[in-house]
Amino acid sequence: MAVRHYTLDFNLTAPADCSATLKGLQSVFQEQEMTEAIHNLEDHGYLATYIGKNGRFAILRIHPHGFVSIDLQSCEGSDNTEAYNLLNALEEKMKDLLHNNIKRIKRLPAIVRGGAVDRYWPTADGRLVEYDIDEVVYDEDSSYQNIKILHSQQFGNILILNGDVNLSESDLPYTKAIMGSGKEGYTGKEVLILGGGDGGILHEAVKLKPKMITMVHIDQMVIDGCRKHMRKTCGDVLDNLNGDCYQVLVEDCVPVLKKYAEEGRTFDYVINDLTAVPISTAPEEDSTWEFLRLILDLSMKVLRPSGKYFTQGNCVNLTEALDNYEEQLGRLYCPVEFSKEVVCVPSYMELWMFYTIWKK
Amino acid sequence: MAVRHYTLDFNLTAPADCSATLKGLQSVFQEQEMTEAIHNLEDHGYLATYIGKNGRFAILRIHPHGFVSIDLQSCEGSDNTEAYNLLNALEEKMKDLLHNNIKRIKRLPAIVRGGAVDRYWPTADGRLVEYDIDEVVYDEDSSYQNIKILHSQQFGNILILNGDVNLSESDLPYTKAIMGSGKEGYTGKEVLILGGGDGGILHEAVKLKPKMITMVHIDQMVIDGCRKHMRKTCGDVLDNLNGDCYQVLVEDCVPVLKKYAEEGRTFDYVINDLTAVPISTAPEEDSTWEFLRLILDLSMKVLRPSGKYFTQGNCVNLTEALDNYEEQLGRLYCPVEFSKEVVCVPSYMELWMFYTIWKK
Repeated sequence: MAVRHYTLDFNLTAPADCSATLKGLQSVFQEQEMTEAIHNLEDHGYLATYIGKNGRFAILRIHPHGFVSIDLQSCEGSDNTEAYNLLNALEEKMKDLLHNNIKRIKRLPAIVRGGAVDRYWPTADGRLVEYDIDEVVYDEDSSYQNIKILHSQQFGNILILNGDVNLSESDLPYTKAIMGSGKEGYTGKEVLILGGGDGGILHEAVKLKPKMITMVHIDQMVIDGCRKHMRKTCGDVLDNLNGDCYQVLVEDCVPVLKKYAEEGRTFDYVINDLTAVPISTAPEEDSTWEFLRLILDLSMKVLRPSGKYFTQGNCVNLTEALDNYEEQLGRLYCPVEFSKEVVCVPSYMELWMFYTIWKK
Repeated sequence: MAVRHYTLDFNLTAPADCSATLKGLQSVFQEQEMTEAIHNLEDHGYLATYIGKNGRFAILRIHPHGFVSIDLQSCEGSDNTEAYNLLNALEEKMKDLLHNNIKRIKRLPAIVRGGAVDRYWPTADGRLVEYDIDEVVYDEDSSYQNIKILHSQQFGNILILNGDVNLSESDLPYTKAIMGSGKEGYTGKEVLILGGGDGGILHEAVKLKPKMITMVHIDQMVIDGCRKHMRKTCGDVLDNLNGDCYQVLVEDCVPVLKKYAEEGRTFDYVINDLTAVPISTAPEEDSTWEFLRLILDLSMKVLRPSGKYFTQGNCVNLTEALDNYEEQLGRLYCPVEFSKEVVCVPSYMELWMFYTIWKK
């Protein structure tokens, strides 16, 4: 059973008369037959708790510098109207008490805590966002990661790996961006996809009549989950691991890349769609940056001189991470050049950077 | 001075031993020298408050059905590390106490309450989203509405009218969508824009060499604010209310539309960019739907037989509102047809519906 957490905040234009504010609001809680406990925090104002029926409670915090906050928590399923009525009564009382002294009144949408469906998936830059998720479609741990597929009312199913939003069924702009934003001709080309377990890139690339696509993904369970629940993204390409012009290898990409490099096998396009924090069984993965450089170096080795390497960066706000990434590009075994593009991926709730890299 | 509100929630696989959990966690709070007050809620578990120094406090709520929540509020500027250390210690203790009985541990990004900059602007479908806002650029009340322009790290400046996110400087997809998504030829055409005070449509339309654009916007202060602070959106088109191929009338659009209808003046394109809850001084505005139909009827009267009427709908999740809108289209003075398109507007954090309407 989930808890609904309501907030109601007042910014005042001047320091508050704490005890007068407390006295004024007490009557509202008393009308609700809530049991009061007051803590006088001296220089820091007041904290008061009010306990109602069915485990419902409210926290009133009066800060002397001119901020009053109210928290109300009640079990989901209990009457929402009751909560709203209490908040409305408190707001009215505050307006009576302080009228022109109120600068801002703020209520956040109620936060649902402990629910069966978790609607809160922070952005890469650490902001709180609530998704319109109404169903847990899939939730399993593989040997490598936690795999969730959640249904969003507007985005369709969303793949979430270890708590990171990877891709929704509405995120074709992600797939197009990591394939070069329509500026590349795939017809007759040889393509290597690293990661890409949701099948989105494979599905789009197959339509473009390439000579051969090799996709290397480590986690069979991601492929299986997406084949079943992300069909707007992958179509039927994951139904078989081998198709007319593609093969899917369920393996760690590092040894595969090493083998290709040794054999001198090369590709026109290498698309790195590994998750933000890449997963590998290789011992080289001492640090994320070293792993990233390992993948980049190996990828450059299997990239034809005229070839292109595509990858996602990160959200545009993580400028330090992006700068670090670009710095790594100057430390590869061969000199490279790159371009970057900012793209709006619908389900990400933040702008995302994509890179195209090629040999000088 | 803002307050940082931290949360830490535990979903258990089975009902909790409330008093054992309480006793286990008490020691963690005691180490922090926080003053305890325990409320036994009988069938509903426990509520405990812990008061620390500098007005910092924590709320521990133990629900017997298997949910434990912790809230921690401390003044911004005080040491965040201290808060994280306490939360980490509580999480470790819970794992010790309940190890395999914990189904999910959830921390939300800390919520900043009462800050000078308000980062929380709910979506049209009522979800909580935090924006990367770092500066209040403009905040004024006009005769019609509250006008805010806030700076977002990734989106640039954002225009917010009466608390609704209207447009950011990264929202060219909005402007393109409400102009017909590039499917219309504007060269040599006569265009009427209703609203559009941010100047985005005017700026884009002027580039397409129309014969004449007339924009009717009621609120001079919106135009002035956007001219100054939304220049990536409006360019220099708002620097003068009259240009080579455009004029801006700072008026209520209803009497203007009536006058045009009486005079028999017509347009190739009518673009309704009025805010979601339209503003008018006209007495007809008894209800939003009647007002919407009034605007639609008047717009159809000034639309040439071959003309198109473009407008935003609402977020795709508000299906009832969209259905109602489409129903209104069947109740106009003349029969119309329409098409609709779902567009991702970067700063909206939700998919948005746009309509194209024409006379049958």
